[in-house]
Amino acid sequence: MTQPPISRFSVPALDELPPDIQERIEAVREKTGFVPNVFLALARRPDEFRAFFAYYDALMLREGGLTKSDKEMIVVATSAANQCPYCVVAHGALLRLFSKNPLLGDQVAVNYRSADLDPRRRAMLDAALKLATAPQSFGEEDIQLLLGHGFTREDVWDIGAITSLFALSNRMAHLTDMRPNEEFYTLGRNRS
Amino acid sequence: MTQPPISRFSVPALDELPPDIQERIEAVREKTGFVPNVFLALARRPDEFRAFFAYYDALMLREGGLTKSDKEMIVVATSAANQCPYCVVAHGALLRLFSKNPLLGDQVAVNYRSADLDPRRRAMLDAALKLATAPQSFGEEDIQLLLGHGFTREDVWDIGAITSLFALSNRMAHLTDMRPNEEFYTLGRNRS
Amino acid sequence: MTQPPISRFSVPALDELPPDIQERIEAVREKTGFVPNVFLALARRPDEFRAFFAYYDALMLREGGLTKSDKEMIVVATSAANQCPYCVVAHGALLRLFSKNPLLGDQVAVNYRSADLDPRRRAMLDAALKLATAPQSFGEEDIQLLLGHGFTREDVWDIGAITSLFALSNRMAHLTDMRPNEEFYTLGRNRS
Amino acid sequence: MTQPPISRFSVPALDELPPDIQERIEAVREKTGFVPNVFLALARRPDEFRAFFAYYDALMLREGGLTKSDKEMIVVATSAANQCPYCVVAHGALLRLFSKNPLLGDQVAVNYRSADLDPRRRAMLDAALKLATAPQSFGEEDIQLLLGHGFTREDVWDIGAITSLFALSNRMAHLTDMRPNEEFYTLGRNRS
Amino acid sequence: MTQPPISRFSVPALDELPPDIQERIEAVREKTGFVPNVFLALARRPDEFRAFFAYYDALMLREGGLTKSDKEMIVVATSAANQCPYCVVAHGALLRLFSKNPLLGDQVAVNYRSADLDPRRRAMLDAALKLATAPQSFGEEDIQLLLGHGFTREDVWDIGAITSLFALSNRMAHLTDMRPNEEFYTLGRNRS
Amino acid sequence: MTQPPISRFSVPALDELPPDIQERIEAVREKTGFVPNVFLALARRPDEFRAFFAYYDALMLREGGLTKSDKEMIVVATSAANQCPYCVVAHGALLRLFSKNPLLGDQVAVNYRSADLDPRRRAMLDAALKLATAPQSFGEEDIQLLLGHGFTREDVWDIGAITSLFALSNRMAHLTDMRPNEEFYTLGRNRS
Repeated sequence: MTQPPISRFSVPALDELPPDIQERIEAVREKTGFVPNVFLALARRPDEFRAFFAYYDALMLREGGLTKSDKEMIVVATSAANQCPYCVVAHGALLRLFSKNPLLGDQVAVNYRSADLDPRRRAMLDAALKLATAPQSFGEEDIQLLLGHGFTREDVWDIGAITSLFALSNRMAHLTDMRPNEEFYTLGRNRS
Repeated sequence: MTQPPISRFSVPALDELPPDIQERIEAVREKTGFVPNVFLALARRPDEFRAFFAYYDALMLREGGLTKSDKEMIVVATSAANQCPYCVVAHGALLRLFSKNPLLGDQVAVNYRSADLDPRRRAMLDAALKLATAPQSFGEEDIQLLLGHGFTREDVWDIGAITSLFALSNRMAHLTDMRPNEEFYTLGRNRS
Repeated sequence: MTQPPISRFSVPALDELPPDIQERIEAVREKTGFVPNVFLALARRPDEFRAFFAYYDALMLREGGLTKSDKEMIVVATSAANQCPYCVVAHGALLRLFSKNPLLGDQVAVNYRSADLDPRRRAMLDAALKLATAPQSFGEEDIQLLLGHGFTREDVWDIGAITSLFALSNRMAHLTDMRPNEEFYTLGRNRS
Repeated sequence: MTQPPISRFSVPALDELPPDIQERIEAVREKTGFVPNVFLALARRPDEFRAFFAYYDALMLREGGLTKSDKEMIVVATSAANQCPYCVVAHGALLRLFSKNPLLGDQVAVNYRSADLDPRRRAMLDAALKLATAPQSFGEEDIQLLLGHGFTREDVWDIGAITSLFALSNRMAHLTDMRPNEEFYTLGRNRS
Repeated sequence: MTQPPISRFSVPALDELPPDIQERIEAVREKTGFVPNVFLALARRPDEFRAFFAYYDALMLREGGLTKSDKEMIVVATSAANQCPYCVVAHGALLRLFSKNPLLGDQVAVNYRSADLDPRRRAMLDAALKLATAPQSFGEEDIQLLLGHGFTREDVWDIGAITSLFALSNRMAHLTDMRPNEEFYTLGRNRS
Repeated sequence: MTQPPISRFSVPALDELPPDIQERIEAVREKTGFVPNVFLALARRPDEFRAFFAYYDALMLREGGLTKSDKEMIVVATSAANQCPYCVVAHGALLRLFSKNPLLGDQVAVNYRSADLDPRRRAMLDAALKLATAPQSFGEEDIQLLLGHGFTREDVWDIGAITSLFALSNRMAHLTDMRPNEEFYTLGRNRS
């Protein structure tokens, strides 16, 4: 069977890309063992590629009050609400890896309300989902709920900004019909 | 009366900001005559600020098949669906200026379906609105409709990517309760 | 450029109209300086015209607990939820004029939740929006919330009845594709 | 058991009402055998009462392309979408009487799509429901569909205007918690 | 006039059915005086027929904390939300009979929130409606609300299971376009 | 860590159950290697248990035009729309096993519209989703679409009836907070 394409837009050959983008892609391949398709699907517009990954790094690699697992939970829960295959499958894998919980990716993807989460994380996802799906109703009372669960104002910004970035990311994935790499489906599924 | 704050998060003093951000802000002040609040509200996180405006420039300043007025229409129509005061008011002003039509900002903000638009622009906004509000239903048939109205595949990417960027931007504005500058309310309202 | 029509239904010539309707239209022209298109678009059915404006006068000119500005807020907020160009643009102008606040029309039209409003007016609009968009859920608890903010029972009736009248008005405007007069876009936009 | 009140607002005694309103109410009692509660619930605001019933008469008694049964169908179908007890129960009775079909009131109230209706009436109700529940999407294509089923432009106005009037009426009924007279539940239920 | 069919799928002749199904149908005819169409519409698949009515009997005939009238209320309210003609009309009749209240069927069908119900039954229907229309949001807090109104855990199961069975039943009725027997429209409409 | 409970209702010990239910549970344990939690969660009400599994067997084991993989697709897609963890996780596993496609479970769960499916199966799921989430709009045109893709009327019944059964099943799972067995998360994930 021929492999379905990874994007409905053209995907450039690696060696045609600007050197900084080639380098970034090689670095991720080295670290992860494969090139996640989002790098290839976005590379056809180098300036947008650079901005996207700069934004991604600024939020997802930032040291702060949220753990890596918290951040991935936000990504998976909001991307599931947008029914985004790439983001749910790829970040579901990262959530399993970072949380060391092989069930959490699917739990959060299907219905975060019944996932094995403490009340603080449930509140975090309630706020993220509201900003993702009904942003016009997000208000001061949502901020106060988060502060009441012990999040700092910087944490609140992180929760909101990650939700916002994946509002963008989910839509780019739907625009391009971006296909998750097969590797993501099984990563982190075994109890260690 | 005291002026309401421009963001519910802290706003740094200009002279505390990294030099490149100070420069960018001074440049816009010089060109526009005032500093749009989005620059101040986002400046507290310099890396995210840089990524946001790099993304913005990559799409909004890009030469291509869409006019500046087309791009602002997409921003206003999708931001209105998200009921985002900052984006509707600020980009409504830009839409009036670029289109030289003092009515178009409000028309597109209230109901783009009844605005004075040709069928090609109506199709452009139908696709943008679908991606903005029901991204899980956006598919190949939407792409084909756009191509059928004479848009190229690069135009389609622009339409989708601008919609995606403002899905992010609207949510950051709701997160921060970002307040539009008073100047935007009246810019471009007179027939030239 | 030819002016787009003010209605998708036929619009009678003024001198063909019954004398009482001609008089009413001349009176508004004298007072306002132009004839708002709603008068022309509805005039083709004189009995319905008379009933509509009798209802309008009974509510909008009635002395009571709501200010003229309060009433226009209800009209703008509920008409924005119905995306009604005529009502949002025309009554946005009236709201600017009556409130002497050049920003309030757009603020309430885009998202009344983030407009510069005290909690009492926010509660007034919450109730109006619920009755406008989910009337089947409106109940005694909504009445009690309004009374708790100091509204009298007559004020509650006014809030509900104005909302109801513009539920009608918005739909007539959509039915006829009623076009706002250009004058409304700029009225009341300057700080006095 | 004490009878529940017919409105959550005060209901004036008949002999306190202005003579023209007393006369109207006596006339309907004579004709119908009882006073439908809508007359009593709205009478506390005589000017609004007069405007409401003038509007009602202008549309519901008007000679034109729609039959009395067609008009009641529009009222029942749109009021059911708004879950309005008074309008569904009272006009369901009128629909049974005018159509001489004892099943039609309940059929249209529960789901007009599966009621025993010809395609022309199905199209009429499709348009009415769209204007009632998603007025912002109502447009020229809906008008054309109606014309294609043989409705005239005046019929289209009637369909839209009746829908609009009951958008008002349903909301006044929810505002007042208006109670249907018990008589309406059984009227017209027997095959003649 | 020819009678419309009772199902859009074929309906077997009674004497072609397995003996146990013939017996069940004859028993209901004897008791009720006519054969409710659901028996005929489902009989073409005997195993599914048997499972459906076994489930029905297990819940609807079970002795427990809910009265027969309570159970029918749940059926009518949730079926009305699904706009299911067969279930609303047939079980509306049963609700009138069991409650000895000729108004309750229509009240619950049109808008259970304004029906003549005590707070306990209102809470029962709130929970049933949530499980029927937004099952993903149903959670422990809904269980607690029911317990707080004096329902036992077995009652809660009954409320949820009846709602679940009619989620199935409503969809089978829409699938087959199942037609209510004319007898159901008038049963139980007279004050005894 | 203590294992979370498999249901929020009491779960009977196996040896307290009626013999036929014990046998059924032992049979599935023998065949599958573990007891799926749905058997335990429903066993507290033996008559409902028997009816549920009789219905399940009648549809899921029936020989007909739909393959086992087709049936599981319907279950996964409609259960995902209802955000039902038990059904999505357990039947996602069955879908992987029956289709011998380790990606299909997640693809259909996240967004069946972008899953690797031929147009016939896409149409099957479009119909199932409509009946699951907007049953009041399901009509003859949906039947015709399925027939146009080569489904027989018996296939249409199967598609609708499986959708209906899982409308019930999803709600019972939400009612009981039914927890998927850990085994289901990994079954069928390897390419054979």
